[in-house]
Amino acid sequence: MANSSDRPVLEELDRAECMRLIAGGVVGRVAFDDGEGPTVIPVNYAVDGDSVIFRTSATGRMTRSLLTSVPGGEVRAAFQADRFDESARTGWSVLLRGGAHRLSAAERAAVPRVEPWPGDERGEWFRLSALEVSGRRLSRR
Amino acid sequence: MANSSDRPVLEELDRAECMRLIAGGVVGRVAFDDGEGPTVIPVNYAVDGDSVIFRTSATGRMTRSLLTSVPGGEVRAAFQADRFDESARTGWSVLLRGGAHRLSAAERAAVPRVEPWPGDERGEWFRLSALEVSGRRLSRR
Repeated sequence: MANSSDRPVLEELDRAECMRLIAGGVVGRVAFDDGEGPTVIPVNYAVDGDSVIFRTSATGRMTRSLLTSVPGGEVRAAFQADRFDESARTGWSVLLRGGAHRLSAAERAAVPRVEPWPGDERGEWFRLSALEVSGRRLSRR
Repeated sequence: MANSSDRPVLEELDRAECMRLIAGGVVGRVAFDDGEGPTVIPVNYAVDGDSVIFRTSATGRMTRSLLTSVPGGEVRAAFQADRFDESARTGWSVLLRGGAHRLSAAERAAVPRVEPWPGDERGEWFRLSALEVSGRRLSRR
């Protein structure tokens, strides 16, 4: 078991390991620019291949920001998830970067179901397709 | 105790409560634009008044991005921290938005000490001063 005084070892994770790690989670964070700089909002999510599906309010800031794209285009966004052990001072973090696009009703029917903890009124579904996947794990030896 | 099937209640947190919540933590996330869109990097941090102090590598992407400012200016960035209980499906999230600036040696001596879990080679210290503090708590009743 890791001891917080052991030597820290930081390793880069490959794409497969990153996707495996986030597949086991239910809460991540979406980062985007809302016109006044970067912002970060927690979301419930599901992994679908090389992308992440999440839901948000139709009238919220995230929907407004992710839809200010050129028609058919995608807005740059990031999805981040991590898990840390504060007593051992270890953990991992994964970042997906790419474009976000809103799912049509037909597309929604074909993706894994996402259940937002705050309730079902989060009527817009988005897919963040990962152009870039990176991750790191901090362990102690 | 919260039961995950209870009715979800989402409340906005005031600035004092947000700062109190993040004062108890040691891992948060900094979001910034590295020129290719938003990115998110976990950091160890300390709260100092209405700002957050964190450290990063002098040669890393975060330092490069946070220093591409006009002289004396600040780069737009965000700091996010949260804590969730996956079994109860509850938790809180806090977001600080504002400008990041690098601390001089003299400034470093006057701020709370930050100990990065991966080791001490994170030679640049930054302060993110919160222009805007927001937070939410999800509970169940």
